[in-house]
Amino acid sequence: MNKENILFGLNGFKSLINSKDYKVKKVLIETNSIASRYIQSIRLDKEITKKLIFLNRKEFSNFSKNNRTQGLIAHFEGKLTKILPSFKNINANVGLLVLDQIEDPQNLGQIIRTAECAGIDGIIISKNNGCGISNAVIQVSQGAFFNIPVYEVSNIDQCLRVLKKEDFWVVALENEASNKNWYEIDYRKKIIIMLGSEGKGIKKINLKNSDFIASIPMQGHINSLNVSAATSVVLFERLRQLKSDTNSY
Amino acid sequence: MNKENILFGLNGFKSLINSKDYKVKKVLIETNSIASRYIQSIRLDKEITKKLIFLNRKEFSNFSKNNRTQGLIAHFEGKLTKILPSFKNINANVGLLVLDQIEDPQNLGQIIRTAECAGIDGIIISKNNGCGISNAVIQVSQGAFFNIPVYEVSNIDQCLRVLKKEDFWVVALENEASNKNWYEIDYRKKIIIMLGSEGKGIKKINLKNSDFIASIPMQGHINSLNVSAATSVVLFERLRQLKSDTNSY
Repeated sequence: MNKENILFGLNGFKSLINSKDYKVKKVLIETNSIASRYIQSIRLDKEITKKLIFLNRKEFSNFSKNNRTQGLIAHFEGKLTKILPSFKNINANVGLLVLDQIEDPQNLGQIIRTAECAGIDGIIISKNNGCGISNAVIQVSQGAFFNIPVYEVSNIDQCLRVLKKEDFWVVALENEASNKNWYEIDYRKKIIIMLGSEGKGIKKINLKNSDFIASIPMQGHINSLNVSAATSVVLFERLRQLKSDTNSY
Repeated sequence: MNKENILFGLNGFKSLINSKDYKVKKVLIETNSIASRYIQSIRLDKEITKKLIFLNRKEFSNFSKNNRTQGLIAHFEGKLTKILPSFKNINANVGLLVLDQIEDPQNLGQIIRTAECAGIDGIIISKNNGCGISNAVIQVSQGAFFNIPVYEVSNIDQCLRVLKKEDFWVVALENEASNKNWYEIDYRKKIIIMLGSEGKGIKKINLKNSDFIASIPMQGHINSLNVSAATSVVLFERLRQLKSDTNSY
């Protein structure tokens, strides 16, 4: 049975109701809030209209606690992760992100948001390490979670080996000065970008599947970028290359 | 008189004691913690050694509350922002970041961290809008705050006009499809990169000082990147250009 999940605010709600993968169970709305004005201004699906529960400020606050809700709390059900499909017959640009051991829900949520904005086709996480998809992760993603598939695999090493047979190249991002600069890698065609946690990095067994190791050389005194900032840098370098006509990076 | 500030953890502490701009008032250390082991393994300045106060776990927890401290809480004094100097006689690459109305301490802290890693020379904020430098901002920056000057100005518009006379070009980052892509701008020489808050963007009066307006086109359904993720994208595009020999972006 699926666990019920919760999200706060309009960004997440708009993405939720546009997704076919989830079932809305109930939507608590505070009267005279940003959310109630929004709900009244749009034409909602009948099935969802039935799930709306309007509460006054005091009643609503019992559920919202200290969260920023804009006056909306949605309960929904559905599988949060998907099974990795085959990409064998795809010949276009495909960008997948592999996250190894990301443990901070704030970072994972931000990375999902960034990946959706950067046109990444899917995110691969491991069943056995990392924080997994929680309400907090969904919340931080600001609705992006509903627009990008998150694939959960039992074994990243094995998954990488399968994808390599389907013509993916694997780029790992690691902080070592001896590596190539992040912009010296060709991110076109079928590409996997792999990042590890800030503390632990990428597991050795997964790292050995990389075709390239890229790094972002630090210019100051502190020794590392936040992992979600590093993800932005690499994913938008990929987008720059895809949008650019030149071959001169 | 200066307000006393507080930071938690070793990253911030290491940067604090390497900075000449701040005076350490006291340092609470939990015995048998990561911090106490670190402190015993290094040679600390005599003046700072005098300020160390060792506490047992129970005593320490009265001060640490729910924060991640690694067993260290440092109290320090000093002016958190600096006065903008003249850059008139500098002819090298200088990159300044102007932040207009950033109100979330988490975002401001992350931006400071990213800017330090990307080799930015200083950050300009306004006295009258935005969240300002707080303990939370310093904490999120993971020590980067102590390595990069933050300049506080009364009036961003006026400040931009002065800097333009000192041969700076101003690039504003805004989310409008009609603008140039972020990588189509030349970030070499003296450059100001200006960002606004997620909700409000850049004030019109400040925006009119821009020589270029750049945007990062969104590839998915959600309409904006987090401001700190967008900052990473632009600052590391600048670094790519500075490190690259080609002129072909």
